[in-house]
Amino acid sequence: MISATTDIRVRYAETDGMKFVYHGNYLPWFEQARISVLDKIGVPYADMENSGYYLPVLEANLRYHQPAHFDDRVTVKATIKDKPGLRIRVEYEVHRGDTLLTSGYTCHAFIDHQGRPTRPPKGFMDAVRPLWGSTKPA
Amino acid sequence: MISATTDIRVRYAETDGMKFVYHGNYLPWFEQARISVLDKIGVPYADMENSGYYLPVLEANLRYHQPAHFDDRVTVKATIKDKPGLRIRVEYEVHRGDTLLTSGYTCHAFIDHQGRPTRPPKGFMDAVRPLWGSTKPA
Amino acid sequence: MISATTDIRVRYAETDGMKFVYHGNYLPWFEQARISVLDKIGVPYADMENSGYYLPVLEANLRYHQPAHFDDRVTVKATIKDKPGLRIRVEYEVHRGDTLLTSGYTCHAFIDHQGRPTRPPKGFMDAVRPLWGSTKPA
Amino acid sequence: MISATTDIRVRYAETDGMKFVYHGNYLPWFEQARISVLDKIGVPYADMENSGYYLPVLEANLRYHQPAHFDDRVTVKATIKDKPGLRIRVEYEVHRGDTLLTSGYTCHAFIDHQGRPTRPPKGFMDAVRPLWGSTKPA
Repeated sequence: MISATTDIRVRYAETDGMKFVYHGNYLPWFEQARISVLDKIGVPYADMENSGYYLPVLEANLRYHQPAHFDDRVTVKATIKDKPGLRIRVEYEVHRGDTLLTSGYTCHAFIDHQGRPTRPPKGFMDAVRPLWGSTKPA
Repeated sequence: MISATTDIRVRYAETDGMKFVYHGNYLPWFEQARISVLDKIGVPYADMENSGYYLPVLEANLRYHQPAHFDDRVTVKATIKDKPGLRIRVEYEVHRGDTLLTSGYTCHAFIDHQGRPTRPPKGFMDAVRPLWGSTKPA
Repeated sequence: MISATTDIRVRYAETDGMKFVYHGNYLPWFEQARISVLDKIGVPYADMENSGYYLPVLEANLRYHQPAHFDDRVTVKATIKDKPGLRIRVEYEVHRGDTLLTSGYTCHAFIDHQGRPTRPPKGFMDAVRPLWGSTKPA
Repeated sequence: MISATTDIRVRYAETDGMKFVYHGNYLPWFEQARISVLDKIGVPYADMENSGYYLPVLEANLRYHQPAHFDDRVTVKATIKDKPGLRIRVEYEVHRGDTLLTSGYTCHAFIDHQGRPTRPPKGFMDAVRPLWGSTKPA
């Protein structure tokens, strides 16, 4: 299991006519936390793209518990619980202080620069292996 | 069951560095189709807000089957299968021609102008009732 | 001079906490009208990109006269007044009925797929020439 | 003259099919830097809205010198040069290291909660006065 958090100050651009953060605008926040987890694993996403690997989203799920508002300081935590294999699942929690605002997950799989499904790049699997050990199958 | 569709031509603004529509940008498309269903039911969402009722999203789920690209013409279909009660569930499908690109659902509940959960406005329930009949409980 | 218009129904996603359309969200509307002008000229932008030509924005200007709101039906008109040469300038007006909401312009120049400035593609200049005649220099 | 800067790491969500940051996505960055200037003046924008004052954008101008890309670390500087009066003009520069990517300005005027133009709130003018002195008329 590996986690990373990112701090976000809510932009006015992210609010909607209810004075809430628009529900679609949590996905870029999830993305920002996911990028931080990949940094922490040691395989920055920008490097993977430069090597011809892309990690599109196959599924996204979001549960909205409490609204976020303009100028809120929120923390977005991304966690990869299960050892990544052909599929990578990332879970998210958005908190404002102790209050859970939003939770969710995304699932991903690697594609190459022609859009074809592909195995994860070797550097990614090498970086991931020691984090989960060899006892837990992908 | 009631459905409505809306036609969308993909904006460049909606694409990302993969040349795909960014995965978060389907939620505004779902919204646009959901607004069309409410129009068809006879209770436009703008009217409900003017009466002090808001319909925030409690949960959203998206499955990405095939990417959409700039300038694609896509059709977004929103369907309410179950008679709305305290919760309203809307299902979505995005097609480009015969190809299913994305599917998903959102769940909603009404709040009042102070953000408190509330029963659906009477006009909404009156409009909904004949569509499902009285045999099917909410 | 050539103009094209596009009709837009304002999305909730486009509003902000003032219940106005967020000021940055007019640029995708300008884009949508600009795409329509290029269609009308006979050189769809998607075709130009497929041929390796890109038309990034060099400058954008927006004047906000009246706010747009959720569910408004607005018309966005894009006009190319001067014959395009190395630079292309497009002007915009957003109306709700007779009310001018927003006006502005964008300036563009072609680049190739490596990001280098380039002359407009021949097909574009061929399509543009008859619209302005030969008397008016670029 | 008063300035503030804000650091931004470019989100994938902010890129477009050219692999550049979409030109409309600089306005939320400008906003973020503008919020920082208001913080520095001592009148956070959220507080002004809570007091019933809103500061919509009347005009925006953006010049794009070099593209920003995914994962770039950029600095956005906002500067108020002239003492604010009925109009407030804010200038912006986006840099990646020493490279100027984008520059621009926005103009603003206060409105009240009913959307009527209004004088700046007293607290704002009190905070602004010592920064420019009394010699320079608004």
